[in-house]
Amino acid sequence: MEKMILSKHISGQFNAELEDIRNRVLAMGGLVERQLEQALDALATLDTELAQTVINGDHKVNGMEVSIDEECTRIIAKRQPAASDLRMIIAITKTIADLERIGDACVRIAKAALENRANNQQPLLVSIENMGRHATRMLHSTLDALARMDADQALELHKADAKLDKEYEGIIRQLMTHMMEDPRSIPGVLDVLWAARAVERVGDRCKNICEYVIYYVKGKDVRHVSYEEMEKGL
Amino acid sequence: MEKMILSKHISGQFNAELEDIRNRVLAMGGLVERQLEQALDALATLDTELAQTVINGDHKVNGMEVSIDEECTRIIAKRQPAASDLRMIIAITKTIADLERIGDACVRIAKAALENRANNQQPLLVSIENMGRHATRMLHSTLDALARMDADQALELHKADAKLDKEYEGIIRQLMTHMMEDPRSIPGVLDVLWAARAVERVGDRCKNICEYVIYYVKGKDVRHVSYEEMEKGL
Repeated sequence: MEKMILSKHISGQFNAELEDIRNRVLAMGGLVERQLEQALDALATLDTELAQTVINGDHKVNGMEVSIDEECTRIIAKRQPAASDLRMIIAITKTIADLERIGDACVRIAKAALENRANNQQPLLVSIENMGRHATRMLHSTLDALARMDADQALELHKADAKLDKEYEGIIRQLMTHMMEDPRSIPGVLDVLWAARAVERVGDRCKNICEYVIYYVKGKDVRHVSYEEMEKGL
Repeated sequence: MEKMILSKHISGQFNAELEDIRNRVLAMGGLVERQLEQALDALATLDTELAQTVINGDHKVNGMEVSIDEECTRIIAKRQPAASDLRMIIAITKTIADLERIGDACVRIAKAALENRANNQQPLLVSIENMGRHATRMLHSTLDALARMDADQALELHKADAKLDKEYEGIIRQLMTHMMEDPRSIPGVLDVLWAARAVERVGDRCKNICEYVIYYVKGKDVRHVSYEEMEKGL
C-alpha cells in the first residue's frame, strides 16, 4: 500500500509521529479486512471454528482503536497541530471508530455462522456471499483511498454504497419470501438476515471513512450531503 | 438541567466558548430526546403524520452535529487546549456522533410506523412501546449525567443497558414465534423487528456517551471494558 502524502514539518519528530499513526491506522484497516473475509468465509461454509477465530480476534481491533485514539489525543496536546495536520488527526480518530464498528459487524456475521441454524439455507447463503464480496472490495478500496488520501476515489466509493444498499434490499425481499413459504426456516433465515444487515452496515462505514478522506483533502465536511451536491462542491 | 462543571480559565473568552459548546450539545440531546419520544408515539399509534414529522426533523440533528463538530475543531486549533479541556472537547465530538446515530434510529422507528404494515400487530407494538419507554428514560438519564458530568451516574447507566438488551432478546423471541404461527404477518412483523433493533441500538449509544463522561471525569478510556473492571478502576 502506498504511503499517505506527507506535508512538511519543521519538526522531524512530529513528522515521524504522524507517519507512525497513519501506519497504525492502515494496519488496523488490514486487520479488519481479514476479519471480514474470514467472517464471510465462515458463514459461506458454516465453519464454526473459523467463526470462533473471528469472534476471538475482535479484541485486537478494539485494542488498536483505543491505543490509536490515545496517541491522537497525545499528539494534539503536545504538538498543537493546526490546519491540515489537525484535520488529518481528526479524520483518523473518526476513521478508527468506523473501523472498530466494521469489526463489530464481522463478529455479528461470525455469530450467524456459529448459530449453525442456517444449515439448509444454501441459496440464501450464496446471495449473502456475493453481497459480502462486494462489501469486502468496497472496504479494500476505501482503505486504499485512505492510504493515498485520494478524494476522487473516495467520492466514487461513496456512490458505490448505493449499489450495496440495492443488493441488500433484494436479499431482504428474498428472505421474506422464503420465510413465508417455509415458516419452519424462520430462525435460520433470521440469522442470515442479521448477517445481511451487518454486511450492509460495512458499506455505510466505508462511506463514512470516504467522507473523512474528503474532509482531510478538501477541508470540507461532506457528511449528510448528497452525491450530486458533493460532486458539485469538490 | 444543571450546568456542567466549569474549570477555571485565564481566558474568559475561552470559558465562554466552552460553555457555549456544552450548551449546544445539551440542546442537541434535547432535540434527539424529542425525536425519540415522537418516533415511539408514532409507532405505538401508527400515526403516519407524526412519523413523517420525525423523518423531516432529522436534518436538524445532522446539522447540529456538523456545526458543533466544526466549532470543536476551531477551538482546538485556536485555543490549543490541554488536559481536562481537551478531554472535554474530545468527549463532546464523540458524544455528538452517537447523538446523531440515535437520531438515525429515530428515523428507522418512524419508518416502521410509516410502512403501516404492522396494523394487526397490536400486542407486538405494546412490547416495543415498553422497551421504547425504557430506552427514552435511559437517554434522559444519560443526558443528565452528561449535563452534570457525573461519572457515578454514567457507570450505573452503563449497567442499565444490559437490561434493555434482555428485553430486546425477549421481543425477538416473541416476534419469531409470531411469524412462525402466522406467516402472512411476516412483512408487518419485520417492520416491528427493525424498530426493536433500532431501540436496542439507542441503549448502546447511551452506553457509549456514558463512557465519554467517565473518560472526561476520570481521564480513563473505559471502552471495551467490562462493568466489573470499570467499577474496580474508578
